[in-house]
Amino acid sequence: MTTDPTTGPTTDPTVATADGTTSATSDSTAETRQERFERGIEVLNRVDGESGQRVIDALADVNPELGHQVVAWGFGEIYDRPGLSPRDRQLVTLGMLTALGGCEPQLDVHINAALNVGLTRDEIAEALLHTAVYCGMPKAINATFVAKKVFGERRLLKDS
Amino acid sequence: MTTDPTTGPTTDPTVATADGTTSATSDSTAETRQERFERGIEVLNRVDGESGQRVIDALADVNPELGHQVVAWGFGEIYDRPGLSPRDRQLVTLGMLTALGGCEPQLDVHINAALNVGLTRDEIAEALLHTAVYCGMPKAINATFVAKKVFGERRLLKDS
Amino acid sequence: MTTDPTTGPTTDPTVATADGTTSATSDSTAETRQERFERGIEVLNRVDGESGQRVIDALADVNPELGHQVVAWGFGEIYDRPGLSPRDRQLVTLGMLTALGGCEPQLDVHINAALNVGLTRDEIAEALLHTAVYCGMPKAINATFVAKKVFGERRLLKDS
Amino acid sequence: MTTDPTTGPTTDPTVATADGTTSATSDSTAETRQERFERGIEVLNRVDGESGQRVIDALADVNPELGHQVVAWGFGEIYDRPGLSPRDRQLVTLGMLTALGGCEPQLDVHINAALNVGLTRDEIAEALLHTAVYCGMPKAINATFVAKKVFGERRLLKDS
Amino acid sequence: MTTDPTTGPTTDPTVATADGTTSATSDSTAETRQERFERGIEVLNRVDGESGQRVIDALADVNPELGHQVVAWGFGEIYDRPGLSPRDRQLVTLGMLTALGGCEPQLDVHINAALNVGLTRDEIAEALLHTAVYCGMPKAINATFVAKKVFGERRLLKDS
Amino acid sequence: MTTDPTTGPTTDPTVATADGTTSATSDSTAETRQERFERGIEVLNRVDGESGQRVIDALADVNPELGHQVVAWGFGEIYDRPGLSPRDRQLVTLGMLTALGGCEPQLDVHINAALNVGLTRDEIAEALLHTAVYCGMPKAINATFVAKKVFGERRLLKDS
Repeated sequence: MTTDPTTGPTTDPTVATADGTTSATSDSTAETRQERFERGIEVLNRVDGESGQRVIDALADVNPELGHQVVAWGFGEIYDRPGLSPRDRQLVTLGMLTALGGCEPQLDVHINAALNVGLTRDEIAEALLHTAVYCGMPKAINATFVAKKVFGERRLLKDS
Repeated sequence: MTTDPTTGPTTDPTVATADGTTSATSDSTAETRQERFERGIEVLNRVDGESGQRVIDALADVNPELGHQVVAWGFGEIYDRPGLSPRDRQLVTLGMLTALGGCEPQLDVHINAALNVGLTRDEIAEALLHTAVYCGMPKAINATFVAKKVFGERRLLKDS
Repeated sequence: MTTDPTTGPTTDPTVATADGTTSATSDSTAETRQERFERGIEVLNRVDGESGQRVIDALADVNPELGHQVVAWGFGEIYDRPGLSPRDRQLVTLGMLTALGGCEPQLDVHINAALNVGLTRDEIAEALLHTAVYCGMPKAINATFVAKKVFGERRLLKDS
Repeated sequence: MTTDPTTGPTTDPTVATADGTTSATSDSTAETRQERFERGIEVLNRVDGESGQRVIDALADVNPELGHQVVAWGFGEIYDRPGLSPRDRQLVTLGMLTALGGCEPQLDVHINAALNVGLTRDEIAEALLHTAVYCGMPKAINATFVAKKVFGERRLLKDS
Repeated sequence: MTTDPTTGPTTDPTVATADGTTSATSDSTAETRQERFERGIEVLNRVDGESGQRVIDALADVNPELGHQVVAWGFGEIYDRPGLSPRDRQLVTLGMLTALGGCEPQLDVHINAALNVGLTRDEIAEALLHTAVYCGMPKAINATFVAKKVFGERRLLKDS
Repeated sequence: MTTDPTTGPTTDPTVATADGTTSATSDSTAETRQERFERGIEVLNRVDGESGQRVIDALADVNPELGHQVVAWGFGEIYDRPGLSPRDRQLVTLGMLTALGGCEPQLDVHINAALNVGLTRDEIAEALLHTAVYCGMPKAINATFVAKKVFGERRLLKDS
């Protein structure tokens, strides 16, 4: 069972389920922190799989509130919104992480995520080629070597 | 012997001039600089419209080769490749330009481009909201104010 | 009256005040989006004053959800936490905004905020001098010229 | 005539050597490079402890002047100024190093420094949570994992 | 009519294929992708030596087109232009890679390249000291530690 | 015992004041703040001309110590060192300022400086074209438009 790093298991889950709506765009719904976290965990697991969960777990003993906010806010409130498909969000995310630089651990998570939500190996490689025009060759190459690691782990590398 | 990673050793060099196709992924076609530039201009005009052309024109008296390379390489060789749709390329590009920071002039061009290739106003706003998770609020806000300018010029702002 | 850019005035404010707790660290409290937004607006106004509010207002017709999240999440959930004083948060913030680059509009808001929460003109100038060691002279100078504008507006410049 | 902005025109040049103080803000004191370096080493050792010294030592055979300037200028001239407390300087520094990205070695030194000058583990974690609002989640997470390493070495991690 | 900014309107299109030169600044030469790649490999090997080649080889099974473009465009079209000497290009490159941050693998390649095209160990160290003024101490130190590794491999470290 | 990495242990402290030279690399010379500032102003005026001086003047009423340090340290201690020519320093600087982003005011100063110390208009344009490979097209274009402004002011634009 996955639990919020700030609280541990909720002993009484019935407290927090009064109206049952889950829409991120609802203005009216009262939600507990725990409910927002649980919604985020569902999205996180669907998008990032185990690699996202490992990051949250690793934050638990140093900055549990950061782990909570990544899940409850980043995934529960933003990722879950219906206005942009999960596949589209990963395209934006690959662009951002390549441009920021120094985000290789996050690129690892999100190249996996991109594959999880339907982008192909070739589309990801093409997107990273495209970053060369805007971010320059070094950042495009750095991101591509993360893709090489992920593709290798998932047996997606070309014979060369 | 060093070989192009896209082709491997060319056992028969005559293959390379046989077919006369102009595909960006063809290894074989001889093209002049002018041809590559003209192909790029077609793509540039289709994607960026007038705002892209204005940038190229403005470079002519200071760094014409940079203008040439933006068109002939950026658009003629990279943008034109079939592996990622124009809409997908703009999603990656919006993410990169927001993350890089200080690229408001390019965001202006590419928010226009995003609208030109089929992204809606609401998808662009959602993509920029999504950048807040990865780039932080200041860069997300800066990019959104460029979108406000572009949406205003194209009469796409919400009544508020 | 300040309203959430995503919803407008709440016609029945009594809906959202069932348990009355406001602690950001409470795991148990159910809060509506509107309540989180209202708590954030209080913090925003206390810290940033009018300049923060103007940013939120300007987002209303282009990306109201971004305005909501800056307030409800950035200020309502993070800024309001008791673990670091408002003055300390502004010191971290001045460092970040100077280092990011291209965030002059946000530096304007947060140099005002720094003065609002008790940092003196001389401490702010000293903090920006300190950034030269880590961010280099150009970013330190860019941030300092924003401080010059803010100090001038608040009649805090030295006679020179 | 061009004059130092900190002093204005010096009408009587003899003033400048009158008092013999060694304050960093004094315009008047003649100091040797070695004296400035020694003052910097005192500050470096007080703030950064051994981890700072190791950086300087490692620079000796490749770029000794850089090591000299980090000490004599960064610590001797800037850090030592009385206008901002050592604790306040570390708050600004944590913000900058997180925002710059790719500065994990320096974050290691300065999270240690932050603890040395009086910031608590919880304040540092809160400051790094705060960075998520301005720098985005990836940089906040990267900085937090450096804090996890430092806290672990100093036996400051929470039981989890 | 849209024209290449490097050439202006071509009044006589037959001019463009008349001379058969291969100069990078010629508008007229038809070249195959393979020819552009081969020209780039020559420049790459001259400038970067084996370390550049290793990067291209490593890209072959994940993103071969990126490897092609680094060589054919970056080296074949840009590096090979006569307007700036190879030594001057490395000075610009060392400045960029230090400023970008997170480009340690590329700094390794280009500090080797700088030595290959005639910059001395002391000039490189001086250039990296110079970056401290503009990029701040952390990035200058990070770049210098890459230089330390390269100088060590080439037995260029000072006795200390 | 901790020693300055540029000198090693000083066995005889009297050595340090023997020669009275003012070389930046001398360990031995006592200099006042005012002397260091004056040396820096000479270098600043030689390299940057009036545009550098205007920056220092503008800092006087908001952060005079930052103005002092730009001059006394940046120019007096670093720029003035003999290990790299002024022309070479500007090549590194153009690369850094383009890569950092958001440093258009500093690019204005330093493109002027580059012309002042012997780089030609065409070499500067070529250097900025070269940045496209490492920093991407947007930053190369932003820097080039600053060059266009400076070249225009100095009547160096091509007829187009």
